[in-house]
Amino acid sequence: MAETMKALAKMRPGVGLDLVEVPRPTPGPGDVLVQMEACSICGTDLHIHNWDEWSQSRIHVPRIIGHEGAGYVVRLGEHVEGIKVGDYVSFDSHQTCGMCYMCRTGQAHICRDFRILGVDVDGCFAEYAKVPASSVWPNPEGLSPEHASIQDPFGNAVLATLGGDIAALKVLVIGCGAIGLFAVMIAKRCGAAMVFAVDVNPFRLEMAGRVGADYVFNPRNGPWDGKVRSLTDGLGADVVLEMSGSAEALKTGLSVARNGGRVALLGIPSGPVSLDLAKDVVFKGITLQGITGRRLFDTWYKTSALISHVVDVSPVITHRFSIDDYEMGFKLMAKGECGKVILYPGRSTETMAAG
Amino acid sequence: MAETMKALAKMRPGVGLDLVEVPRPTPGPGDVLVQMEACSICGTDLHIHNWDEWSQSRIHVPRIIGHEGAGYVVRLGEHVEGIKVGDYVSFDSHQTCGMCYMCRTGQAHICRDFRILGVDVDGCFAEYAKVPASSVWPNPEGLSPEHASIQDPFGNAVLATLGGDIAALKVLVIGCGAIGLFAVMIAKRCGAAMVFAVDVNPFRLEMAGRVGADYVFNPRNGPWDGKVRSLTDGLGADVVLEMSGSAEALKTGLSVARNGGRVALLGIPSGPVSLDLAKDVVFKGITLQGITGRRLFDTWYKTSALISHVVDVSPVITHRFSIDDYEMGFKLMAKGECGKVILYPGRSTETMAAG
Amino acid sequence: MAETMKALAKMRPGVGLDLVEVPRPTPGPGDVLVQMEACSICGTDLHIHNWDEWSQSRIHVPRIIGHEGAGYVVRLGEHVEGIKVGDYVSFDSHQTCGMCYMCRTGQAHICRDFRILGVDVDGCFAEYAKVPASSVWPNPEGLSPEHASIQDPFGNAVLATLGGDIAALKVLVIGCGAIGLFAVMIAKRCGAAMVFAVDVNPFRLEMAGRVGADYVFNPRNGPWDGKVRSLTDGLGADVVLEMSGSAEALKTGLSVARNGGRVALLGIPSGPVSLDLAKDVVFKGITLQGITGRRLFDTWYKTSALISHVVDVSPVITHRFSIDDYEMGFKLMAKGECGKVILYPGRSTETMAAG
Amino acid sequence: MAETMKALAKMRPGVGLDLVEVPRPTPGPGDVLVQMEACSICGTDLHIHNWDEWSQSRIHVPRIIGHEGAGYVVRLGEHVEGIKVGDYVSFDSHQTCGMCYMCRTGQAHICRDFRILGVDVDGCFAEYAKVPASSVWPNPEGLSPEHASIQDPFGNAVLATLGGDIAALKVLVIGCGAIGLFAVMIAKRCGAAMVFAVDVNPFRLEMAGRVGADYVFNPRNGPWDGKVRSLTDGLGADVVLEMSGSAEALKTGLSVARNGGRVALLGIPSGPVSLDLAKDVVFKGITLQGITGRRLFDTWYKTSALISHVVDVSPVITHRFSIDDYEMGFKLMAKGECGKVILYPGRSTETMAAG
Repeated sequence: MAETMKALAKMRPGVGLDLVEVPRPTPGPGDVLVQMEACSICGTDLHIHNWDEWSQSRIHVPRIIGHEGAGYVVRLGEHVEGIKVGDYVSFDSHQTCGMCYMCRTGQAHICRDFRILGVDVDGCFAEYAKVPASSVWPNPEGLSPEHASIQDPFGNAVLATLGGDIAALKVLVIGCGAIGLFAVMIAKRCGAAMVFAVDVNPFRLEMAGRVGADYVFNPRNGPWDGKVRSLTDGLGADVVLEMSGSAEALKTGLSVARNGGRVALLGIPSGPVSLDLAKDVVFKGITLQGITGRRLFDTWYKTSALISHVVDVSPVITHRFSIDDYEMGFKLMAKGECGKVILYPGRSTETMAAG
Repeated sequence: MAETMKALAKMRPGVGLDLVEVPRPTPGPGDVLVQMEACSICGTDLHIHNWDEWSQSRIHVPRIIGHEGAGYVVRLGEHVEGIKVGDYVSFDSHQTCGMCYMCRTGQAHICRDFRILGVDVDGCFAEYAKVPASSVWPNPEGLSPEHASIQDPFGNAVLATLGGDIAALKVLVIGCGAIGLFAVMIAKRCGAAMVFAVDVNPFRLEMAGRVGADYVFNPRNGPWDGKVRSLTDGLGADVVLEMSGSAEALKTGLSVARNGGRVALLGIPSGPVSLDLAKDVVFKGITLQGITGRRLFDTWYKTSALISHVVDVSPVITHRFSIDDYEMGFKLMAKGECGKVILYPGRSTETMAAG
Repeated sequence: MAETMKALAKMRPGVGLDLVEVPRPTPGPGDVLVQMEACSICGTDLHIHNWDEWSQSRIHVPRIIGHEGAGYVVRLGEHVEGIKVGDYVSFDSHQTCGMCYMCRTGQAHICRDFRILGVDVDGCFAEYAKVPASSVWPNPEGLSPEHASIQDPFGNAVLATLGGDIAALKVLVIGCGAIGLFAVMIAKRCGAAMVFAVDVNPFRLEMAGRVGADYVFNPRNGPWDGKVRSLTDGLGADVVLEMSGSAEALKTGLSVARNGGRVALLGIPSGPVSLDLAKDVVFKGITLQGITGRRLFDTWYKTSALISHVVDVSPVITHRFSIDDYEMGFKLMAKGECGKVILYPGRSTETMAAG
Repeated sequence: MAETMKALAKMRPGVGLDLVEVPRPTPGPGDVLVQMEACSICGTDLHIHNWDEWSQSRIHVPRIIGHEGAGYVVRLGEHVEGIKVGDYVSFDSHQTCGMCYMCRTGQAHICRDFRILGVDVDGCFAEYAKVPASSVWPNPEGLSPEHASIQDPFGNAVLATLGGDIAALKVLVIGCGAIGLFAVMIAKRCGAAMVFAVDVNPFRLEMAGRVGADYVFNPRNGPWDGKVRSLTDGLGADVVLEMSGSAEALKTGLSVARNGGRVALLGIPSGPVSLDLAKDVVFKGITLQGITGRRLFDTWYKTSALISHVVDVSPVITHRFSIDDYEMGFKLMAKGECGKVILYPGRSTETMAAG
């Protein structure tokens, strides 16, 4: 009889998730099976939980969710090289085709045909997860599983923040969810002369200030563009990292970007955005960069080096739960009163309470 | 009594221009006076002629128009170094402050405070033009005045086309006005693997094919995006050069840009443009570049080298008139049945007829 | 009984090669077997033929030589994906580990641990060659096998020539062997304003002029640095591509590189080179790039696009022989009176004579 | 009668300097006169003091020396714009022609024809210094004169250290004179994952550790290359900043640079250096960058931002003297038992003693 495991899944259309007992996955050729130590909740997981418009069009039930995590390899499929049972690993959530132009030229993160773990295939919010060996990243021994689990979103922030010059520049981060907070930290620790952070959520804004933002602005307290301008000698921010998805914030961000500045777009607007391209992009000579995923594995090397040697991510990990108590984590995410929330698939409520 | 000169000017609000006799300008400190040999009409001049919304808000009458040209230095203001009477020159239409961050870091083309010749100050469609020595470009002897006169718009095309890799790539040029035609030529002669050109004007499209486009598409003849996709193995164009200002064309251009592709925006949309940033920019990892002006003088060095050694611009210069017959030139521009139209301030209708 | 094949090999230490009948290789896991249509002789093959110092220290006999070629896949080892029997292919001569930092960040061409086909493992100057699927490049149908066979060295030239700006610049190519000739062609067809070529061999120099060099210089006819300077307004060449391995030529090349210029080093000096780094590199702000191999597969995409659409390599392929007549090819190579020499493993002397 | 001033000068060939009373300079057209507050001694000044081979060939006596400093503008020559009397300024030691290709394309630091303050023209170790307005950099009010005075060498370190990626990388700094120490600080504060520092002088090495080096190596204590290798997983350093001028150190540095790594050359070897280019540059795909001066003014903007917001340079300023006591400063420099030594032209021995 097949072994089973606990998993957090969307079992049927509609709001909410279910903690279910399902067969443990069997790694196919090129796959590895990972026993999950720590998982980390992403905004995408919340969208699926809430069964929003995007989820309804994209998710096929039943589907185990989750794509950020870390654990130990317990079984290898056929033809896996360079990984062995017992390895301590994380994995990129993008599973790429390996064959297209992008995959063959160092741009697999924008593969023509990628699938996302926990979205298009069963994910890692479970006791075991099956992932392709080609997406596996070896973790150093000393890294804690919860720190290892947040490398996927940290990598997003790395790709955006280090996607151009950052040292000695004035950097505006719009949106202080986890990726935005990571961006604030990376910018600050990689030599930014000044970091501005913007969010409508006071909890997040306070965190931004604590992890390195020199100035924080809440648009609910009135216009903030003038403050950025006056702190930049009227020039505007050299670098703008848009991580909110808010059309309004993006427009303000473009308007306070310096002539010749770099604007990275990582936030996902919920619909079309109307821009004054002539005034805000063309005549200013702005460069706009669409940012998604992480370079395989250039971004992971940088992520790992930064987490091990440069940036202390501890302050951004605010909550930890047994996977049994997942609803508490999702509630915090919904309120936005948290940084990263970690779920432990292998620990009970009681173990967690005991620390 | 002051010497006078013939000049083409907007003398009062409303459609049309006047050929007037006005005092010859006196070069102030740092200026030079150029006797104009050849001038070239830009789309901007046509906007001013037609007194469109933009012109009404920007132009203060009376204003001598024109910003593209070539001629001989006949007089120097005080404190001019490195230029002497008799020099054969062109000039950049952007007059920059020389003091701001952009000016002091090699980005004067997006100076905080620049003024445009023939728009914000009196221009060069005249027998003589006063320009700052800091905007002057020395022409090589063998270059004809009409070729020298089109370096300003050719430089726009250089900045856009060579603003990233071009060799061995598939390039889509949207909009085949003069700058678009120059872009087609530059891309083709700088090693593009394939050049696609798009325009609604059959005359321009035919020229595009003649000067180097491998495939030309007229949106009026039906959808063209599928053709670009099938000619690029379904990947899309590596580089998109948007030179039409059409929102519709830009959207189609973004949709057929390859994942990870470069999209240069030089065309000026007439209003806000609504974009699906998530699908067309973020998830595709697109880089959008706002392009304006020419780097001083990096772009001019490249422009001069290309015109002298690599690209034959002759086919794009389609018409030549005495400045007395300027209306014929503006009519052709309005119809779009031309490449560059050259006006000769120093030649009569008769001289032109005689060749 | 095992099938056999004809192969060109170094069977024992000493000068010369042998045409031998050996067992046809069996593709292991991850390998493919290619029936060779055309092979191309490289300078490295000549070194092995001549059993020079480098060969003596590197080559273990018996060794089938050769690393440039094209043919059809006739058999697949286990676990090969994306390639099928009948595919028309070439392959990169570098067999990379796939696991190191360089391999995992798009720099596999400088893999920590690569092996070279025909040097460290049996090569492709044979009726059949075994190569790793990870090194295989699919050729387009219309490309002739001899053109397909020279993509490996053409790719070296692509990496060097397009390793920085080339359009509108003045380019000096030192050394006009096959890679140098390819570099001349690529530079010229990718928009170089001027191409200078240098070689001591009149045959090669004449070819350089024929395929695109604007000026050719033979150091045996006296100093040539002054000529480069006077043709560049005293500034020197913007780009220097060193492809000769001559210490003397490199020094002259550095001395005529423009301040801020780019100098690509691809030629292999036979010993240490003494440089005046202060004068020729530091104070001039020169960038020196070590160039080896081809980016996998960025350089191959560019190579393929250039050969199909931009550069006609025909003039560089000067001689064709049956593999039975290999000695004639190596003699030509030794004299330097040839471009690329193609060997056909599947054709007899008589077939070749018949065209 | 002309006003006079105190100045430190080489009055005749031979070792040593003289403190002399000379006429105060008169600013010519385009010049400004600066009353010096603080000056900083460079290794170049020591060479001139010691009258080494280089000095003998380059310096024409009498010559006021010194090129690093800060002070207040007290007089303007004709045609100076954007600077006024009373401005608090520093200046770049390179006085550029403003006309050549390099000057006109943002590379004035490698101007074809530049002159160095205190070397080719009279310098700033004096109560007053005449400098071209085009070399003047405005300092922010809050910056102390001694911090302002070291921006010239700090800028060298900025150009070298930020001349490529630095964040998340492992960086080797060879030579811990002032520029090397600045490089250590910049690398560390701009996100380097690990900084290695090498010097033969224990005093400097101790300082390197104090200002940010994670590991320091003294070649006199035995081979250090193996240590760099083992701390980089055998790969070698991602970035090597050569600031010693030692041929031996450069060779070791090249040998421990990672394949594909960046090696910046700023140190000035005293003679030709013999390199194994094949092994250490070509096959490793190394990029070597010659570094001199500072980009005008891109490097100055970065320097100013880093000193004001990111790097505390205080620990590197180790000694302060009245200009009357210059010999004490030069003795410390000769011994290498110092960081930057500041001379105050306007303060007496007694004032300095009083703090």
